Amino acid sequence: MSEPVRIGLLGKGTVGNAFHDLVLERSDAVEATTGRRPEIAGVLRRSEGDFDQILDGSEVVVELIGGTDPARDYVLRALEAGRHVVTANKQLIAQHGDELFESAREHGVQLRFEAAVAGVVPVIRVIQESLAATEITKVFGIVNGTTNFILSEMASTGATYADALARAQELGYAEADPTDDVGGADAAAKMAILARLAFGAPVGLDDVTYQGITEIQPEDISYAKELGLSLKLLGVAERRDGGISVRVFPCFLYSHHPLAPVEGPFNAVMVEAPAINEVTMSGPGAGGLETASAVLGDVVSIISGKAPVHAAHQRFEIVRDINSAFYLHLEVADRPGVLAQVADVLGRNEVSLRSMVQRGLGNDARLVMVMHEGPESRFFSALEEIATLEFLRAQPRAIRVIEEEWV
Amino acid sequence: MSEPVRIGLLGKGTVGNAFHDLVLERSDAVEATTGRRPEIAGVLRRSEGDFDQILDGSEVVVELIGGTDPARDYVLRALEAGRHVVTANKQLIAQHGDELFESAREHGVQLRFEAAVAGVVPVIRVIQESLAATEITKVFGIVNGTTNFILSEMASTGATYADALARAQELGYAEADPTDDVGGADAAAKMAILARLAFGAPVGLDDVTYQGITEIQPEDISYAKELGLSLKLLGVAERRDGGISVRVFPCFLYSHHPLAPVEGPFNAVMVEAPAINEVTMSGPGAGGLETASAVLGDVVSIISGKAPVHAAHQRFEIVRDINSAFYLHLEVADRPGVLAQVADVLGRNEVSLRSMVQRGLGNDARLVMVMHEGPESRFFSALEEIATLEFLRAQPRAIRVIEEEWV
Repeated sequence: MSEPVRIGLLGKGTVGNAFHDLVLERSDAVEATTGRRPEIAGVLRRSEGDFDQILDGSEVVVELIGGTDPARDYVLRALEAGRHVVTANKQLIAQHGDELFESAREHGVQLRFEAAVAGVVPVIRVIQESLAATEITKVFGIVNGTTNFILSEMASTGATYADALARAQELGYAEADPTDDVGGADAAAKMAILARLAFGAPVGLDDVTYQGITEIQPEDISYAKELGLSLKLLGVAERRDGGISVRVFPCFLYSHHPLAPVEGPFNAVMVEAPAINEVTMSGPGAGGLETASAVLGDVVSIISGKAPVHAAHQRFEIVRDINSAFYLHLEVADRPGVLAQVADVLGRNEVSLRSMVQRGLGNDARLVMVMHEGPESRFFSALEEIATLEFLRAQPRAIRVIEEEWV
Repeated sequence: MSEPVRIGLLGKGTVGNAFHDLVLERSDAVEATTGRRPEIAGVLRRSEGDFDQILDGSEVVVELIGGTDPARDYVLRALEAGRHVVTANKQLIAQHGDELFESAREHGVQLRFEAAVAGVVPVIRVIQESLAATEITKVFGIVNGTTNFILSEMASTGATYADALARAQELGYAEADPTDDVGGADAAAKMAILARLAFGAPVGLDDVTYQGITEIQPEDISYAKELGLSLKLLGVAERRDGGISVRVFPCFLYSHHPLAPVEGPFNAVMVEAPAINEVTMSGPGAGGLETASAVLGDVVSIISGKAPVHAAHQRFEIVRDINSAFYLHLEVADRPGVLAQVADVLGRNEVSLRSMVQRGLGNDARLVMVMHEGPESRFFSALEEIATLEFLRAQPRAIRVIEEEWV
């Protein structure tokens, strides 16, 4: 059995706690994938733990303190001591990236920070690895879930900015002091990081022009709705006139824009490059568990070192009879009693109707039905029975329907 | 200067040629990111090249022959000889994955295949690395661009299946023999690969139930439209009742479903896990250049070995005056000549109006305007002038608008 991967955990707030729990919960699975088991070797918090001792006992240091002081100092000392570091700290990377990357290179260790931008949406890894071979021309999107929630709330309820913010705080989507989020500074730090990675250029916070959403009026949103527009706080980093431009600003999008439907506390990032057209990624913005998952993903990448081994470590039965909803198209003779007979077959097989369109067509009629979800076996036995009904004028056609609800 | 990375290229069809060109074009950039320069050391095609000689001269073998014979044999021999292998071959991975992964493990080399599923959409890397620390419950999406193009075409033009297929062939989205795509076998192979990675279980092609789109009638699509439904060929791999289910089938989606707006030759994949809710990724399905980019991305990952070094290797000027479109909200006294004066200011500053809403409100009126895109400096100088007009009743409010066209 190989050595466990000893993790020194700095900080134990919401994300730190979620990470601690996740390591316990997923250690078996990580061991199955990578061959090594992660374990928390020590925890540093304000009231507990000694940094040097934790450093001594760790192979990987996970920094979840936030802010730049003392996080910068701890991370530099960890890198200098030859430890890999994973952090979720966007301000640290945006403000001190040059120094930290240089130190990681110098000491031959990894510094990973997927969780610093767009929560669990793997935009860092995709830009650094998947798209490393393309010339990226533009990275843009919604990188702050708090403001996207507030703008969605204003649009859907007509609430004022202040009321929507209060609602976001109530639901835990905004902090007690929301300044960094609503003023655009949080998104600006993330865009600085994305611009650096996409363009291989040293982009600092000072290079980002930003603006928040605090001045937005409900009536702007409602007037714009009439013009087919919806409002987002957008971050845009792009090549322009031989240079680059990195900005964060509230912005109206037409409804056919891929980012227009992104509502609530979600993040979505689009990457454009001539070779690939564009790639879009979206998912929930930072929450404790999502951030912790991204951090553990980085730890797994460090453990793997190279590509995962693809060992098939689980056996599952292949399940074939599952629940589905169906669309059913019937061409039938147009005469009384036909619908009743079809309904009877469906009823006896416990297939329940959701909606229906009926059309006459000379002597024939068409019944187009959508069923509620139920076991496929039941629907197919109903279908078999329906296919034998003498008033049928053509083969019935059945197609599945996804009826899940989406936010 | 470090050694170049010598690549042995097997196969030189559309993707092989695109890959060859891309290596030439991007070798400087890859060297800047990874410290090593990729170069094509040898090419094997039906009429040219000797496999053993190419193997001898290569560090990484890129297999772009397609099919399983002789691709399987070549890839096995490359792995056994200690070469890393990158392939875009979904049938090879779906049918012989176990054997190939085992061989890669045994010989301590990497086998990468991002391009085998969803083209440039980095779903393999995201499942394997970003989400390695989560328990994935479901992976589903549109993994065949040919069929998605055909279904989009049928829906938007009312074309029959046969006509839409002919159109796809004309545009190069479907092959002369489209059987694998339209019958669902291509999507089934991809879903087998995704299920294996997501669940860590040995899933073969035989475990996938699949169905294609050849029986779809235009009237099904048009009836379903009335019910608010759109049709996709969906691949679904999920945990169900303690087992797993892997299926490909045509399926209706309600318009609020995140996959409903995916039109044309695009791919989109959603991954669900309790810890992360869901992550969605989308982009163009396989084309020559997109596939070649994904292959080169895998080569870059192999060269990097560990996380990229983040060296800032480029300097750019930060461009601040760029083109934007604007929304402008004005509260003005409701009297003749007001609009003319505003229009005059806009005109003199060469700001062009795209659309407008005007509303009376007692003695005041509101003008809500959306401008066409133009230099921001011009708009801001117009805005400054407008702010001084004596009939203004409140501060003007300006918000940017994205007016790009999206397919």
